[in-house]
Amino acid sequence: MSNADDYKNSQLYRVRHSTAHVMAQAMLERFPEALIAIGPPIEDGFYYDFDLPRPVTDEDLQWVENRMREIIREGHDFSEKEVTPDEARAFFAGQKYKIELINDLVAGRVDDMGNEIAQPASKITFWTQATFTDLCRGPHVKNTREINPDAVSITFKPPAGAYWRGDENREQLTRIYGTAWETAEQLEEYLHLLEEAKRRDHRVIGEKLGLFTISPLVGKGLPLWKPYGAMMRDTLERWLRQTQLDNGYLPVVTPHIGKLDLYKTSGHYPYYKDSQYAPIQVDEEEFLLKPMNCPHHVMIYKSEMRSYRDLPLRLAEFGTVYRYEQSGELTGLTRVRGFTVDDAHLFVTPGQLLDEFKDVVRLIQMIFNSLGLTDFRARVGTRDPESEKYVGDPAQWEQATQAIIQACEDLGLRYTVEAGEAAFYGPKLDFMVRDVLKREWQLGTVQVDYNLPERFELEYVAEDNSRPRPIMIHRAPFGSLERFMGILIEHFAGAFPVWLAPVQAVIIPIADRHVEPAEAVAAQLRARGLRVEVDKGKSRMQAKIREHRDRQVPYMLILGDRDVENGTVSVRLRTDEDLGALPLADFIEMAASLVESHSLELR
Amino acid sequence: MSNADDYKNSQLYRVRHSTAHVMAQAMLERFPEALIAIGPPIEDGFYYDFDLPRPVTDEDLQWVENRMREIIREGHDFSEKEVTPDEARAFFAGQKYKIELINDLVAGRVDDMGNEIAQPASKITFWTQATFTDLCRGPHVKNTREINPDAVSITFKPPAGAYWRGDENREQLTRIYGTAWETAEQLEEYLHLLEEAKRRDHRVIGEKLGLFTISPLVGKGLPLWKPYGAMMRDTLERWLRQTQLDNGYLPVVTPHIGKLDLYKTSGHYPYYKDSQYAPIQVDEEEFLLKPMNCPHHVMIYKSEMRSYRDLPLRLAEFGTVYRYEQSGELTGLTRVRGFTVDDAHLFVTPGQLLDEFKDVVRLIQMIFNSLGLTDFRARVGTRDPESEKYVGDPAQWEQATQAIIQACEDLGLRYTVEAGEAAFYGPKLDFMVRDVLKREWQLGTVQVDYNLPERFELEYVAEDNSRPRPIMIHRAPFGSLERFMGILIEHFAGAFPVWLAPVQAVIIPIADRHVEPAEAVAAQLRARGLRVEVDKGKSRMQAKIREHRDRQVPYMLILGDRDVENGTVSVRLRTDEDLGALPLADFIEMAASLVESHSLELR
Repeated sequence: MSNADDYKNSQLYRVRHSTAHVMAQAMLERFPEALIAIGPPIEDGFYYDFDLPRPVTDEDLQWVENRMREIIREGHDFSEKEVTPDEARAFFAGQKYKIELINDLVAGRVDDMGNEIAQPASKITFWTQATFTDLCRGPHVKNTREINPDAVSITFKPPAGAYWRGDENREQLTRIYGTAWETAEQLEEYLHLLEEAKRRDHRVIGEKLGLFTISPLVGKGLPLWKPYGAMMRDTLERWLRQTQLDNGYLPVVTPHIGKLDLYKTSGHYPYYKDSQYAPIQVDEEEFLLKPMNCPHHVMIYKSEMRSYRDLPLRLAEFGTVYRYEQSGELTGLTRVRGFTVDDAHLFVTPGQLLDEFKDVVRLIQMIFNSLGLTDFRARVGTRDPESEKYVGDPAQWEQATQAIIQACEDLGLRYTVEAGEAAFYGPKLDFMVRDVLKREWQLGTVQVDYNLPERFELEYVAEDNSRPRPIMIHRAPFGSLERFMGILIEHFAGAFPVWLAPVQAVIIPIADRHVEPAEAVAAQLRARGLRVEVDKGKSRMQAKIREHRDRQVPYMLILGDRDVENGTVSVRLRTDEDLGALPLADFIEMAASLVESHSLELR
Repeated sequence: MSNADDYKNSQLYRVRHSTAHVMAQAMLERFPEALIAIGPPIEDGFYYDFDLPRPVTDEDLQWVENRMREIIREGHDFSEKEVTPDEARAFFAGQKYKIELINDLVAGRVDDMGNEIAQPASKITFWTQATFTDLCRGPHVKNTREINPDAVSITFKPPAGAYWRGDENREQLTRIYGTAWETAEQLEEYLHLLEEAKRRDHRVIGEKLGLFTISPLVGKGLPLWKPYGAMMRDTLERWLRQTQLDNGYLPVVTPHIGKLDLYKTSGHYPYYKDSQYAPIQVDEEEFLLKPMNCPHHVMIYKSEMRSYRDLPLRLAEFGTVYRYEQSGELTGLTRVRGFTVDDAHLFVTPGQLLDEFKDVVRLIQMIFNSLGLTDFRARVGTRDPESEKYVGDPAQWEQATQAIIQACEDLGLRYTVEAGEAAFYGPKLDFMVRDVLKREWQLGTVQVDYNLPERFELEYVAEDNSRPRPIMIHRAPFGSLERFMGILIEHFAGAFPVWLAPVQAVIIPIADRHVEPAEAVAAQLRARGLRVEVDKGKSRMQAKIREHRDRQVPYMLILGDRDVENGTVSVRLRTDEDLGALPLADFIEMAASLVESHSLELR
């Protein structure tokens, strides 16, 4: 929230809003008969929607962009003026979209950008620069000279179609995107990140590397993991599973459906009803596709009488859950309808809460660091003292919140405390991770929960034979395995660390007589647990090297007469580095030890 | 079918049927006012239903059993007599169940056992021995002397409630079970197997060893795997997964739902509609909980253009599927509503079919042998030439059937060919495995399928650039992981091979001062991948040994002063064998190598 508010009050926001008006001015010069709709600032830029007499061309855009720079350099003031509804309607005669906005504005239905509002606007204002006047609340810069003409672009992104008021039954408009920055360097950096993001798009890389596919016949938002992707997923899972076993977590496996009554008891139904699939009727009972794993784990806790000696009990599962998302929201692996949570639920005594919480945080830190995701901050989500939506005893909330902050302090974590970001049942800690493109993702989450133990009447036999309730900690370092894989694909642009790469080495026999020795080399690598392929195709060696480098295979091992003779392999890295001929045993040792240490290096 | 027919024509069947009449005679002597219903032979014995004036006691049963032996020894003939309906009704005046049977028999609705029949009985017959006459079609033995009085029992199984005609709105009767064999040894063997089956019941052992639980709130037939069970499951999966990787299988991961259209295309819907959960409506689309994995794997095949060079393509997944079973049918792990199939689908060219089929069979043989399930036979299921239910080209059927038989021959498999046991889309090979209790289970299955490639229009680019369809092989060595675990639990009675045991060793420190060294020993075992616990409880050493032996932990390692001094552990096996003090390194080497070789031995 506060980030968004900061942006709205910033100079950059005013610059972008003003540049949108400059673009509209230039567009009206290019297309005098154009009808204009709305043009708000957005994250990283702005857009403006136009009703145009013909499709816009690259040439138009280039002309408009050049003209915008001229207008900016001319140094026009932005001035505000209050008008009556009739004046406004008279001024925009013929501009039907503006007329509709003015009418709705007067009736109190929407603001100047067409957003619904609770109260009628108190006044109608125009903003003018040079020859262009817009219905607008502002704010704007004082003069176009505050805009850096070299930090403006509208040609970086193709125009897109948009419906008037987002309603597919209304007119279709042309949306032109623009961006503006303080300096030319910032613009360049931004355009570079955009290019990079496109190059790294996990949907494109996922297709190219054969990691996953989405089939319309199976369903939108339901990725099918192809062999290479399934191997990566499994490698990631095995690693986390082993790490968790080493840290005293115990695996469990639970079904993907549960009775509706289970979710009524947990309170997830009807609370999260809209993000769940409709219940399935079976005989007299109703079942839900599992939207979360917690109630299942709770039932495992409850299947035995527990004693304080059994706690902490840490139940872990890679549990696949299904949630409803609107089909328009679905993208690749990052917004899906079915995903696997690297879930665990810790059942602890009050005395164990702080230490267990710290151990969980340490584990998550270790996991992110291992993957080179070293730029992260933590966000402590506390209850909003004004809100009524939270359940549970304020004293427990206070205790849990203090434990979380204490844990952050003890571990020297960079953290912020944000009121209103808690779950409704308890405070939580979220990990906000930046990838190489500086994009911030909310990943791992740790939550303290007094609510489910209460609702399911969990208890344990304490040392004094009393029956207190345990506290639950929910935690998931990756969150969704699908989303995390999507982020990893983009973070590494497909050039995964050796241990994670679906194919770790390709052996390229130079001639047919080297195929058999290549198979023997492959067998030795496989015996050491490495994932290897032999390229027996008919292409030439250089073409093969190019192909596998493009697939981001870490090692290409070329095998010719001299190698066979000397027991070596000629090692090429995907970075194009040539390590020359290495004794096979040395290469295996190097690769295997990089894999075993989960190193991010290639040598 | 033929097994059942054999039984019906056997002397044992006549003996059991006749013993049921002897039991009814003895019961009427004990309870002269009893009303008698029906008393058919069943697998392994017989029963008779009575309407009794008071609950039957153990004393009654013992009296009746003794009296039966007397009657048998008296040497009575069984004689048959045809009667008119009126004679029958007159004889059974006051026996309302018999009267109802006679009326229905005359009207052609049921036979003498109350089973529905298509045609009216041509005649009504009585069978009589000594003082007892029953409405009965026979056949019976000639004389009670054909029954071995020492091979008869009715006290091995408690009486149960049963509704007249299985209708819960009708009278409740008392069903008394009995069994009869040729020799006293056979009876004893049978009673022993029954005892063993009870002792080995996977539901009881699963509860005792903390392997799984079933929660009514989650749902019937939906096991929740607790930590020990999840570890076993995972161990089994990892082993099979690695074995499959070594054999050129590629892992895939697919969602647990799919669009209804997918199953309409595959033909599974509406064909298997009754064993599927109802569809889930999502926006304008309908989804099914996945009843099988094949269509999902087909879509992965179809996600790329395939060439003959890509084949055979072997896609493997531990895929959890959901099928509807009536709630009365559900038992423990063996009849469930959700289960994980160790599934794989091989896409092959016609030329690869035989070799691939043989490799699949070899893999399954290896798997069963590794688990000590060495007593198995194969059943080749072919099409019933009389039936119309099969789809596809008869020439392809013939080709596939010949390939299967050829594979059995080449591999020296013990097999039978059974017409009518094919799937509707192709012939198959089922593995019938006997456990230690000599019970036969249908486990692994391998099916040849021309149908799905046709329905989904699969193709590959052949060497001559034509586009033939691949053939699919469906195969699952375990079938259902849940059911297979249930069978393994009973087969091993919970005493799993070391590699599979959820806890492989428990370290028992003799005194408090040995706890720390015990933890150090545990750490060394864990570093070698062994699953270890340290028993720090307050119980005495002997009690601890007893407890862990009962849990079937393979090794109990006792640690006292001398062990700490000498770097040894005192090793007790769960078989009570005492290996004495072994150097720690030697024990680790022994245990780890038994694990790595998947040995069935403890030393």
